[in-house]
Amino acid sequence: MATDEEILKIYEASKGTIETVPKIKIANKDDLSLRYTPGVAVVSEAIKNDKSKVFSYTGKSNMIAIISDGSRILGLGNIGPEAGLPVMEAKALLFKKYGGVNAIPICLDTQEEEAIIDTIKNLAPAFGGFNIEDIESPKCFRIVDRLTKELDIPVLHDDQHGTAMVTVAALINALKLANKDITKIKIVINGAGSAGLGIVRLLNYMKIKNVYVVDKSGIIFDGRNENMNEFKKEIAAITNPEKLQGSLADVAEKADVLIGASAAGVFTKELIGKMADKPIVFALANPESEISYNDAKNFGAFIAATGRSDSFNQINNILSFPNIMRGLLDSGAKHVDYDMLYEAAKALAKCVGKDLSAEHILPAPYSAKEMISVLSNVAAAVASSVIKSGNTRNHEVNISSIKSNAAKIIKRSIKLEKLTTKTQIGN
Amino acid sequence: MATDEEILKIYEASKGTIETVPKIKIANKDDLSLRYTPGVAVVSEAIKNDKSKVFSYTGKSNMIAIISDGSRILGLGNIGPEAGLPVMEAKALLFKKYGGVNAIPICLDTQEEEAIIDTIKNLAPAFGGFNIEDIESPKCFRIVDRLTKELDIPVLHDDQHGTAMVTVAALINALKLANKDITKIKIVINGAGSAGLGIVRLLNYMKIKNVYVVDKSGIIFDGRNENMNEFKKEIAAITNPEKLQGSLADVAEKADVLIGASAAGVFTKELIGKMADKPIVFALANPESEISYNDAKNFGAFIAATGRSDSFNQINNILSFPNIMRGLLDSGAKHVDYDMLYEAAKALAKCVGKDLSAEHILPAPYSAKEMISVLSNVAAAVASSVIKSGNTRNHEVNISSIKSNAAKIIKRSIKLEKLTTKTQIGN
Repeated sequence: MATDEEILKIYEASKGTIETVPKIKIANKDDLSLRYTPGVAVVSEAIKNDKSKVFSYTGKSNMIAIISDGSRILGLGNIGPEAGLPVMEAKALLFKKYGGVNAIPICLDTQEEEAIIDTIKNLAPAFGGFNIEDIESPKCFRIVDRLTKELDIPVLHDDQHGTAMVTVAALINALKLANKDITKIKIVINGAGSAGLGIVRLLNYMKIKNVYVVDKSGIIFDGRNENMNEFKKEIAAITNPEKLQGSLADVAEKADVLIGASAAGVFTKELIGKMADKPIVFALANPESEISYNDAKNFGAFIAATGRSDSFNQINNILSFPNIMRGLLDSGAKHVDYDMLYEAAKALAKCVGKDLSAEHILPAPYSAKEMISVLSNVAAAVASSVIKSGNTRNHEVNISSIKSNAAKIIKRSIKLEKLTTKTQIGN
Repeated sequence: MATDEEILKIYEASKGTIETVPKIKIANKDDLSLRYTPGVAVVSEAIKNDKSKVFSYTGKSNMIAIISDGSRILGLGNIGPEAGLPVMEAKALLFKKYGGVNAIPICLDTQEEEAIIDTIKNLAPAFGGFNIEDIESPKCFRIVDRLTKELDIPVLHDDQHGTAMVTVAALINALKLANKDITKIKIVINGAGSAGLGIVRLLNYMKIKNVYVVDKSGIIFDGRNENMNEFKKEIAAITNPEKLQGSLADVAEKADVLIGASAAGVFTKELIGKMADKPIVFALANPESEISYNDAKNFGAFIAATGRSDSFNQINNILSFPNIMRGLLDSGAKHVDYDMLYEAAKALAKCVGKDLSAEHILPAPYSAKEMISVLSNVAAAVASSVIKSGNTRNHEVNISSIKSNAAKIIKRSIKLEKLTTKTQIGN
């Protein structure tokens, strides 16, 4: 790993991760007349007469904005919009490279909830979707829920939806290896932030009942008054059927699965020791996990996984957001829902195939071949769910072309980045 | 020219004009660790500690947003944000192709002045500048003036600043051919919208006094009460020193220069007949000019120019906005001012060189060679003015590298568009 100083130099030399490039040619006066005035006026008139044509005649249908207010950037906290921008830029690159999605990194100069909602709604005409990112909870949930209600383009909340999808995919494969039935297990989630809520909502959609969520005030239960908000009330209503009270250590007793979406170092040897046979431990905190992969294994985990790239079983959102968004855009989806995420999770789990082992429960996002398979299968699963739900702008959706485009997208990115990196001018 | 149906098919096939592409390579796990977590956290921390570093470590310094509310799109009027989007997309392409500027087309779902200002200010952390476009006047002037005061990144108003710059460049060359001294001539401008105000403000900066502006209520004069607003009052204060009253026909008497920034067909044979010797007529209305090039010449114009591409002497903003913005970004400019625009106009006028003739008063924006010369000279002129004013973020500005980058930018665009157009996937 490079030193901090080296990292800063590398970032200073490249100045960002993406650039815009023409996707059409302007070679002469006729091209310009067609693509600018007077030709463009014909297109503007057509859209004026039928607003929905903006999806057909412009780049809107494959252009999203990644939006943060800088209030909860990675594990760094509220460091402000400028400091959050490099993270949004990284995601913009990954959306294109792995999903073929044009994504614009935007950090807002406001952290006020209504102002964030208004600003995003004001941006909607130019974009086919939004990815909401690194906004502190519970504000982010209110923002995403409001936008989902008030906009007719999909609003993906990667911290919530993406993490839930990839975690459940990992869970499906881990349970396969442990030979356990997902409807008969006990799942404990430590953390009631974006990831925690997303996972709970997805498990609830899957009708999994024995789920327990713990925050700093202990187990969340229906009737608790301390440290609650509308979303913790939602969690209380759909988890913990016995209304258990107590600590993480209490509820970890006989748990089959322990998922951390919390903070560095909070999972201990004792905790894993209390779990049921063949414990499954996912430690998602980033960059420092609740427990390291090796410690979890040494303390008895049958399957361990973390958010980190330096050990086996990385639970990495790269496996979710580019692929989910591809499926949403290609199917003309109007909203994100949990059926799509469940279908996406099952499709992602299947991508591992016969390589499935305790050290390999998810595809590794470093080979073009694996990423083609992931994009192809996850995007198609999302699009199929969208069609089934009817929750679509009624594009003609061709699932087999979604599947076959995946290889073109990934290979094209590699070709393009070869040319762009070789010819940078330095601005 | 293609039929309307053909144009729509072409737009439907390409779906927009620009796409985002990676400008860095992610080939393996190490690249991802460097460019996403945990590496990116080092960069976020550095910017948190010194906000100004966002210009060094991200793409902000070469990323702008083109923003309209759809309230005055071309000559089509208030057709709404979706219908305005194709026009912003065309500009985004031209910013990159001719200026190397990454530009994002954005149309806002509000036409309310304060909401537009708030939204743009909220977007500021991610962008190095804004181009305000096709917003109705006088609202657009208030928005641009407010943003110029309240933001420390340049806010270009192409309809005002860009048109003024290219019109004055055309005027400089036309007067050279007519052998007239700009300080001794009479200039009449028909139209007090964005272009009219911009031209007046630039001529005022140049200390040209004999300028007369006419709107639907006649000549604008200090003391007029009919059909005035704060910007027409500004025009009254800096033009028409004799406080002349009357009509366009009255004031055209003995005018050396007649500039139309108004509406189709309003310049007549009689009007040109009243002008001084060697009349110069610029008819900028788009797509239909105040008078056609041929009619103006037939009715006695010594030099004629229009906004159209189908005759000689097109006064085309492609000669202004990409080049001005390049200079602004490369010099770390905080604001747009009229010294830059005057320096840019002189530099653009000089680009014509020994080819200068009554049929060729401006470079034609269709050859790579001419566009390289324009970008090189105009961007450098803007940057030099910025340095002189001190109105900069104090980047180390290297004028000779701005000049030499121009060829790289234009040639790179041609190379990139060859690859992107050949490999489109259709989304």
